[in-house]
Amino acid sequence: MSEGTAPAAGEAASVADQAARERLLYLRSSIDNLDAALVHLLAERFKCTQQVGELKARHSLPPADPAREAAQIERLRRLAEDAKLDPAFAEKFLNFIIDEVVRHHRAIADRTLEEAGEPTGPAAG
Amino acid sequence: MSEGTAPAAGEAASVADQAARERLLYLRSSIDNLDAALVHLLAERFKCTQQVGELKARHSLPPADPAREAAQIERLRRLAEDAKLDPAFAEKFLNFIIDEVVRHHRAIADRTLEEAGEPTGPAAG
Repeated sequence: MSEGTAPAAGEAASVADQAARERLLYLRSSIDNLDAALVHLLAERFKCTQQVGELKARHSLPPADPAREAAQIERLRRLAEDAKLDPAFAEKFLNFIIDEVVRHHRAIADRTLEEAGEPTGPAAG
Repeated sequence: MSEGTAPAAGEAASVADQAARERLLYLRSSIDNLDAALVHLLAERFKCTQQVGELKARHSLPPADPAREAAQIERLRRLAEDAKLDPAFAEKFLNFIIDEVVRHHRAIADRTLEEAGEPTGPAAG
């Protein structure tokens, strides 16, 4: 590398780095917007599943529903493919959410039994 | 329970069960709508992080960024509180997503090194 081109190359690299930093900030602001939307949709989803949990507890339905879950996974995998999202990740994501929902539903069911004066605890889980 | 009231009570229970089943279907259709929205937002989010990954690989930036992640978690916990979503769950959710993103970024970085003819593999991870 000649002495004459070194500063220019350094300058070009610095300009490229600056452009990259700006682009990174731009993308991160989109990610932050999407995350805010995701959190609000998740809050809305848990409002729905909270009501499902209360309904199931009042009608003594089991907290988990394997047939419904299988249909949801199948549908989400299809939607993910259309949206160019890895279907395996979509399935992992739904399972992650469902685990949390079932945990909530068990808590609601326990609370409902307690209110009805029935014994709860690990044996009743 | 007298014989006269048993059928009426049974009928009332059946009507209540029917109403509960209808309510369950209603709630599930909202959950399905929200899931479709979530999948599409996630797809959009991964489009952004894919670009971040390529940018980081080109500029040899590390795939993970603990300071950025800490700021994201703090912000999402605040947003979750406003939306009445369990902040601990929001944090778990973000970590779940970030794990996937870092996995993608490592793959992009390995691919970039391979294209540059540099050795990759567990030692380069």
